[in-house]
Amino acid sequence: MQQTVRVELGSRSYDIVIGPDLLQDSRKQLEPIISGKRVAVVSDAKVSEKYLDLLKTTLDPITSRWDLYPIQEGEDAKSFSCLEDLLDRMLADGIDRQCTVVAFGGGVVGDVAGFAAALLMRGIELIQIPTTLMSQVDSSVGGKNAINTRLGKNLVGSFLQPRIVLNDVSVLSSLPLDEMKSGYGEIIKYGVLRGNREFEWLEQNHSAIMNQKSEELVEVIRMGCETKAMIVSEDELDKGKRALVNLGHTFAHAFETFAGFGKFQHGLSVGLGVIAACRLSEKAGFCEDGLSRRVEEHASDAGMSVTLQDLDGGITWIKEELYQKMMHDKKTVNGSINFVLLKGLGEPFVCNTIEKEMVLETLSEFGAK
Amino acid sequence: MQQTVRVELGSRSYDIVIGPDLLQDSRKQLEPIISGKRVAVVSDAKVSEKYLDLLKTTLDPITSRWDLYPIQEGEDAKSFSCLEDLLDRMLADGIDRQCTVVAFGGGVVGDVAGFAAALLMRGIELIQIPTTLMSQVDSSVGGKNAINTRLGKNLVGSFLQPRIVLNDVSVLSSLPLDEMKSGYGEIIKYGVLRGNREFEWLEQNHSAIMNQKSEELVEVIRMGCETKAMIVSEDELDKGKRALVNLGHTFAHAFETFAGFGKFQHGLSVGLGVIAACRLSEKAGFCEDGLSRRVEEHASDAGMSVTLQDLDGGITWIKEELYQKMMHDKKTVNGSINFVLLKGLGEPFVCNTIEKEMVLETLSEFGAK
Repeated sequence: MQQTVRVELGSRSYDIVIGPDLLQDSRKQLEPIISGKRVAVVSDAKVSEKYLDLLKTTLDPITSRWDLYPIQEGEDAKSFSCLEDLLDRMLADGIDRQCTVVAFGGGVVGDVAGFAAALLMRGIELIQIPTTLMSQVDSSVGGKNAINTRLGKNLVGSFLQPRIVLNDVSVLSSLPLDEMKSGYGEIIKYGVLRGNREFEWLEQNHSAIMNQKSEELVEVIRMGCETKAMIVSEDELDKGKRALVNLGHTFAHAFETFAGFGKFQHGLSVGLGVIAACRLSEKAGFCEDGLSRRVEEHASDAGMSVTLQDLDGGITWIKEELYQKMMHDKKTVNGSINFVLLKGLGEPFVCNTIEKEMVLETLSEFGAK
Repeated sequence: MQQTVRVELGSRSYDIVIGPDLLQDSRKQLEPIISGKRVAVVSDAKVSEKYLDLLKTTLDPITSRWDLYPIQEGEDAKSFSCLEDLLDRMLADGIDRQCTVVAFGGGVVGDVAGFAAALLMRGIELIQIPTTLMSQVDSSVGGKNAINTRLGKNLVGSFLQPRIVLNDVSVLSSLPLDEMKSGYGEIIKYGVLRGNREFEWLEQNHSAIMNQKSEELVEVIRMGCETKAMIVSEDELDKGKRALVNLGHTFAHAFETFAGFGKFQHGLSVGLGVIAACRLSEKAGFCEDGLSRRVEEHASDAGMSVTLQDLDGGITWIKEELYQKMMHDKKTVNGSINFVLLKGLGEPFVCNTIEKEMVLETLSEFGAK
């Protein structure tokens, strides 16, 4: 049932391996990278308590030494002080240029461990072993890492491509439903980016995915990673085409900053943002009517939020303020908001000529006042 | 009198411009890079008080806005807290992806400003305007940046190639002699790396350089930058050949860590380290006898340290401890010290098979017990 996606980046190319039981059974994949080497596993308590023993069975026979570097759970770990503390602990233990960092956890662990690996002696090797649907389908691919500052999220970071990504779908079986939904928001995004065949497949298989059936999980993660890999291969450093993977995110970030971060799962917000981007594309005449309804119906079937009230019913959503949040997005240049819009399924493009009135109208239709 | 050295790195290629009066007269060079853009000048008080007015005459007419971001003087600025503070100040001012960072100062400013530019939104553009001989001839070229941690110097950092390096030799006229000597240590290194013709030129012109004659300064900085540029072009990320620019540095770092950092100028230590590397090369039979004497005589003529007692007469230098420092150098792999040795002038190579006894003997000859 195992699948492999290749991320083509010249000398920095790497494989994403997707399958069940990879933690305890990935010696074949890891041996060429870390055989006889020293390894630093970065993880949080939630993940390491549950899964470190499985990973140990792979690491013990092939590494010269491996150590666990725990970081705190949650978004607070993405801070300067946590990063400095992690680097100090690694350096005090004698981590050198020959060591490999393993990021073992969700998106936060991937960010902090990836950033640490990028900076230690100006860059040592990195392996990503993501343990959430969100990080398996999206954030562990592409080499971006970042921490937050008091001025905003992900404003300080770097690029470091991993040597390999291991997506063990078996670990997803313990994920709570809201984390599955969060990952599914990005999956809807990739379905829409990819085209009708892939979106139709999602329409038929969303229950199996949400119910954590291994075969469908492997298939959908392959689809997401493959889509991101194609885009990243063409624009590693996010100077152009890579903007397409931000479909739905201009809306999503505005929803999140307006509500205050952490009020709801990022992926729920992205799912809603994708529907809003489809609606805006229709209004602007870029695609035929019906696209947004189709995406909305699918999202609803999958149990996702399809209005702002679904996201958070306790908030009074103000369209003018949401628009101002979009204006302050880090991707907004000289006051022109860069929306990823659609000419149809599988036909995304970047558009910076959308009138404010049309955005406000769209926000109204999703429940903003 | 102006000269230009091109650093060939594909899409990241850039020019190093060397000449007098560049601060006030580099509109032609900077306009293509920052015309109409916003610029963040990072500098320390010593440099900005003396030279910011000159740079202002270039920046005022071509930028949309520029601001000074002062950092503290000296090595203490290369810390996490100083970096975080600088990033916060820039982000609070609304620095975005379209802004350019100008590193305006010596090696410390280049490191901190370069690191900040590398990390802000995963990398914004950087211009290096170095103001010391050391940074003009060496550290501003090649894209390395770093800060120190409590575990050691330059252990955390990244690579970011600048868009251009402006080496204004006029600013060197205010440098104290010990800073000139520090830069000259790297110059000796480049002369030895380069070959007989270049070394002979140094033998004839060292007084003019030390006396800060513009023409000779332009020529020697061109030679140093050109040599480093050739090496960096072949090995940007320091995976192999770039090790050659560390000629003398295995010795130099041992001298510095043994004595305690800041006891003497880095370049003085490098100059002595280069002589020691020549001596070791002779002992090991890689080059003809006489090389180390020739380099030593030249260094002595230029007023450089040629023994450990010259470096610091108040220290009892212990060869066994110096050797242990070499073993803990970040470039030492599995207990094999990587020395850059010479088959002759212009013929450096990396060697990791030198016996301990031979290193101790060399250290003795330079005054260690």
